[in-house]
Amino acid sequence: MDLVGGSKVLSEFDIIRSFFTRSAPATVLGIGDDAALIRPAPGMELAISSDMLVSGRHFFEDVDPYKLGHKSLAVNLSDMAAMGARPRWATLSLALPESVVQKDESWLRAFADGFFALAHVHRVDLIGGDTTNGPLNICVTIIGEAPEGKALRRSGARAGDDIWVSGYLGDAALALAYQKKKIMPKPGEVEAAELEAAELEFLMAALEMPIPRVELGQRLIGLAHSAIDISDGLLADLGHILECSRVAAVVRIDRILRSAAMEKHFPHPLAIECLLAGGDDYELCFTVPKSERIKVELLSREEGIPLTRIGSIEEGAGLVVLDSAGRTVTTRVKGYDHFQV
Amino acid sequence: MDLVGGSKVLSEFDIIRSFFTRSAPATVLGIGDDAALIRPAPGMELAISSDMLVSGRHFFEDVDPYKLGHKSLAVNLSDMAAMGARPRWATLSLALPESVVQKDESWLRAFADGFFALAHVHRVDLIGGDTTNGPLNICVTIIGEAPEGKALRRSGARAGDDIWVSGYLGDAALALAYQKKKIMPKPGEVEAAELEAAELEFLMAALEMPIPRVELGQRLIGLAHSAIDISDGLLADLGHILECSRVAAVVRIDRILRSAAMEKHFPHPLAIECLLAGGDDYELCFTVPKSERIKVELLSREEGIPLTRIGSIEEGAGLVVLDSAGRTVTTRVKGYDHFQV
Repeated sequence: MDLVGGSKVLSEFDIIRSFFTRSAPATVLGIGDDAALIRPAPGMELAISSDMLVSGRHFFEDVDPYKLGHKSLAVNLSDMAAMGARPRWATLSLALPESVVQKDESWLRAFADGFFALAHVHRVDLIGGDTTNGPLNICVTIIGEAPEGKALRRSGARAGDDIWVSGYLGDAALALAYQKKKIMPKPGEVEAAELEAAELEFLMAALEMPIPRVELGQRLIGLAHSAIDISDGLLADLGHILECSRVAAVVRIDRILRSAAMEKHFPHPLAIECLLAGGDDYELCFTVPKSERIKVELLSREEGIPLTRIGSIEEGAGLVVLDSAGRTVTTRVKGYDHFQV
Repeated sequence: MDLVGGSKVLSEFDIIRSFFTRSAPATVLGIGDDAALIRPAPGMELAISSDMLVSGRHFFEDVDPYKLGHKSLAVNLSDMAAMGARPRWATLSLALPESVVQKDESWLRAFADGFFALAHVHRVDLIGGDTTNGPLNICVTIIGEAPEGKALRRSGARAGDDIWVSGYLGDAALALAYQKKKIMPKPGEVEAAELEAAELEFLMAALEMPIPRVELGQRLIGLAHSAIDISDGLLADLGHILECSRVAAVVRIDRILRSAAMEKHFPHPLAIECLLAGGDDYELCFTVPKSERIKVELLSREEGIPLTRIGSIEEGAGLVVLDSAGRTVTTRVKGYDHFQV
């Protein structure tokens, strides 16, 4: 089927057959019936999460479709990571505008390639979904397995836990600020920061090709008291842990890893905002008893992922962020909300 | 929270908390973490299906939100019915336009009520999903249980099976034709059909409040060789069974139950099209060995659902529809395709 420059209209069945039907070795019955059939392993419970990505809100219309395919699955894998679950199956529902379907198959091919490349890494089977016409909308449901009763929840943090974060924070938000040309250093506030090509590329990768911490999440089972993935920004997501666990936290902002690009802008208020409240990080924030620090450090080395101790869980309520001099840091926004930013 | 006439903007968390968090008794961990946790019963496999409903394509912008909530779940329950699976859990992802979120909470309240009323009937727990801003789009993933190896598939039809259909066909499509003012009897072709209010109401209910055959599907396990739900029209969906089972079929059009409204238009070509190829029926089409006719008739009586034997499965390939005189019926379209109609 060669549609480039042609006028053939792809049918729903063509699209599913041509782009989204691949082998699903861990699945009893895959795409092509009224539902897929799966058999969870004995002793495991299932973790299930859905994420919807909307054009103009979660990505720009002209985004590279390969990267969009990657990210559509990555944000869902990140939820599995935050539960310590092993992702195994996914459904993909797509609303596609005429412009994507009628003109050219390259968009769908690239989207599917990006999706399946990441699915392959984590051995996730695509088992079903839906394809329809409409404003571009991508809805993925992910299904993973965790040992019964062991999944990582937001509600397990206890006073005396350290707060840990994987990787660098704020780079995706900084990339977005760049795209929106928001970084405008004011005279005297911070020097005009010229990013090198490699630095900008690093930022864009954080935004467009996030790496979900799937292995790390599974290895945190039995070690972390609580975990969440940072999708709405550190303050908002750590805030969820505090709320669910009914505890307080103190975070040291200077402990949070900053990329070279972030460093160039620090401590511009926008940079601080990106670091603390930028969305789209897809790193893990988790709490571990102080007595287990050495295990986390070992895990960091084994997984090759920076794991940084950024603060501690305390009795009470509230979240305080301190700078290197011990002063409270205040920010304008707490986190990303789809209806308020 | 009283937003009627007010200016407060509902946050994503407000929406989830206020409208979509209800008890989930069959769920280990429901809404409020990175993923939900469920435990399938031993000896069961899971059936999973997703459907996406888009404004302007699957429903009109001004549709009654209660009915939309009902239908969003109903179309997914219908997939469970077609597998013989017992639906147990669902996720709901919603893209909502500003107009719905900002002005008034009545839309969301009614939508949630319609969704949960049906969920309650079938004891389905809403366990997660996503809420975001964007053109109105509803994506539901349903998860059900079926005894291992027993789920009803499209691929099991065999020569010698009878073809059965539940309920009436074509009424939803006829309702849609009415909405689009497509029913225009030509002189000499068929008499101008004036529908009574009750007949029109019956049609509209078929379109807007379809009743998924959930119990029936489960009772067909061990009895039917194959099953599918009629969402794209009888010809297209029976066609899937034939293709997957590598068999042929003969269908007698006069055997298919016609509602009073449908009867008034029959045999107008558009009425025939609605009956054979109308979408949105959500009835079950299934095949059962001839030797088991009595069991299907008994089931019909017990469930209070008309089950009609409309034809038979044959060796070979292809689908032939015969009228009462044994002549082949031809139609313009085969079934509904989201990119071709």
